[in-house]
Amino acid sequence: MERVTVILGERSYPITIEAGLFNDPASFLPLQSGDKALIVTNSTIAPLYLDTVVKSLEKLGVNVDSVALPDGEQYKTLSVMDTVFSRLLENNHGRDTTLIALGGGVIGDLTGFSAASYQRGVRFIQVPTTLLSQVDSSVGGKTAVNHPLGKNMIGAFYQPASVVIDLNCLKTLPKRELSSGLAEVIKYGIILDADLFDWLEDNIDALMSLDEKAMGYCIRRCCEIKASVVAADEHENGVRALLNLGHTFGHAIEAEMGYGNWLHGEAVAAGMVMAAETARLLGSFEQTDVERIKRLLVRANLPVHGPESMKPEAYIPHMLRDKKTLAGKLRLVLPTAIGQSEVKGGVAHDVVLSAIGCCLI
Amino acid sequence: MERVTVILGERSYPITIEAGLFNDPASFLPLQSGDKALIVTNSTIAPLYLDTVVKSLEKLGVNVDSVALPDGEQYKTLSVMDTVFSRLLENNHGRDTTLIALGGGVIGDLTGFSAASYQRGVRFIQVPTTLLSQVDSSVGGKTAVNHPLGKNMIGAFYQPASVVIDLNCLKTLPKRELSSGLAEVIKYGIILDADLFDWLEDNIDALMSLDEKAMGYCIRRCCEIKASVVAADEHENGVRALLNLGHTFGHAIEAEMGYGNWLHGEAVAAGMVMAAETARLLGSFEQTDVERIKRLLVRANLPVHGPESMKPEAYIPHMLRDKKTLAGKLRLVLPTAIGQSEVKGGVAHDVVLSAIGCCLI
Repeated sequence: MERVTVILGERSYPITIEAGLFNDPASFLPLQSGDKALIVTNSTIAPLYLDTVVKSLEKLGVNVDSVALPDGEQYKTLSVMDTVFSRLLENNHGRDTTLIALGGGVIGDLTGFSAASYQRGVRFIQVPTTLLSQVDSSVGGKTAVNHPLGKNMIGAFYQPASVVIDLNCLKTLPKRELSSGLAEVIKYGIILDADLFDWLEDNIDALMSLDEKAMGYCIRRCCEIKASVVAADEHENGVRALLNLGHTFGHAIEAEMGYGNWLHGEAVAAGMVMAAETARLLGSFEQTDVERIKRLLVRANLPVHGPESMKPEAYIPHMLRDKKTLAGKLRLVLPTAIGQSEVKGGVAHDVVLSAIGCCLI
Repeated sequence: MERVTVILGERSYPITIEAGLFNDPASFLPLQSGDKALIVTNSTIAPLYLDTVVKSLEKLGVNVDSVALPDGEQYKTLSVMDTVFSRLLENNHGRDTTLIALGGGVIGDLTGFSAASYQRGVRFIQVPTTLLSQVDSSVGGKTAVNHPLGKNMIGAFYQPASVVIDLNCLKTLPKRELSSGLAEVIKYGIILDADLFDWLEDNIDALMSLDEKAMGYCIRRCCEIKASVVAADEHENGVRALLNLGHTFGHAIEAEMGYGNWLHGEAVAAGMVMAAETARLLGSFEQTDVERIKRLLVRANLPVHGPESMKPEAYIPHMLRDKKTLAGKLRLVLPTAIGQSEVKGGVAHDVVLSAIGCCLI
């Protein structure tokens, strides 16, 4: 079993990573006999894993309730959250209940914000079932729902009590979503860990074919990097912003194309190339490293161009709504080398437009 | 000027109380020149005070935006909150914006939760315009919206950066709402401060006629009590629960009658009598003190009976949804003397039903 601890004082919590955890009641600690819990999942995951998780929790003596939401980023909204609250209230869940997020990033983000808000805060456990949520969104306590005018605009910093990663989930994950998760994995290499980037160049094929040992190592390493960044800067006042490499461009793609049409990781992949091109145009990043990033993304079956239908000018209004924007000025995460990056304020719009132009097909 | 500090480490903040504060730009610190802010108010308060507050903020050099919501408890919902988020996003408010709640408890609670959630948390300032919100809801960081199945069920603990109380507001406050605020004032006397209760018996008429000196003292004293309770127990794990005297019954009345038909303070007044009767039936509170409470409430023009149309049995399902409920058992705040109270678990339903029965007309 791989194990990582997110160190946040009294709110520290464990991440456990292993194939088969869903079948083991002990995976779901700190839940214990007599506790009440609501599993929030979606209509795709429920037929695959809900029964197994419910059985393990019942063995533990937990009073389990569940709700399955429709599947998709377009359902990560306040009004869908309201259906979770209705379920909790109809079934008399008190302030001592626990929400369990069984699904990908959408379920984790929405369930986490529901847990942060229900009766002003109840316990929750992340059980991420996609590679993307395992290496990124389930760790670190960022929870949110989308608004028609911007992604993740409504939410809370709210830490889970534990994160349970069963590697077997990846066997039922569509290949396109596996690639989407690899975009965030590659991101960690670019922003903070040149060794991880090198390792990925050697092992990307093993990951694409779900080699268990390679995948276990990869997920643990990403969780370690994420945990150390979050421990240093829980509320994103500093280093945590680096985790947003490619996201300002990527969120623009997702918002413009309609949530769910481009997968998050696909939009981030194209966005990372745009960030790299921006840095290259500013003279702070090498052309050869842009090419290394693009080659690795292509091997992971990820896009290195924006959507054909989206002109560079269409990115800017979305980008100005980014949470890093201060006093109306764009602030971007840009790589300075493979394994190093910075937050750069006041980047001129024409440089950004040119960089996006470099990424047209 | 009366001034109280809520002591919560780095998140400590001042409450200032004086007639005429809205006309003084310095009232709105920590806002400063160059800041951006959104005033959230309602359609009743906007024509009375919005221009004055906007002018003061503009004198300070703040870039001011405003939105007026419909007035009433029935609008304290997630979907109305969404209109605040739309306004913020349409006008490109960043993470460095400040929300200003200009209104009563509904505006304060909804704006506070909006500030807690927008981009995972922005600064906010409470500018309470009703007696109820001045002495209670604007202080202490409890923010929330209602759900059709329960009041204040969705929210956050989120502290303001300051609270600005202009006593002149009370001159335009309907008398029924003034009385509603006095219910919470009387509550402080019952639960924690026998001297305040005595003072109220001597000064209730001065308060009813808005005597400025009496009102300034009264609001300061209530804010001091609230601040000390919040400083000792921000997240309501202990002593803070005492502030809910009468509220478990009162919320049942509000929910059953439809939010807004009984004012919050009216429901709490009837609920405090029910709590006092419960304590009397349990042998822990004197009949003469029940009578003292009822006399003072009547002098403040407040109800001492529940709604005629509501049978005792109708209270229970609402009361079981109370946030103090643990493992399905009622927990109630009950007075033990004037100026003393306790949280009592496992109160039998038939005692509660009898106590409510004592309060039928």
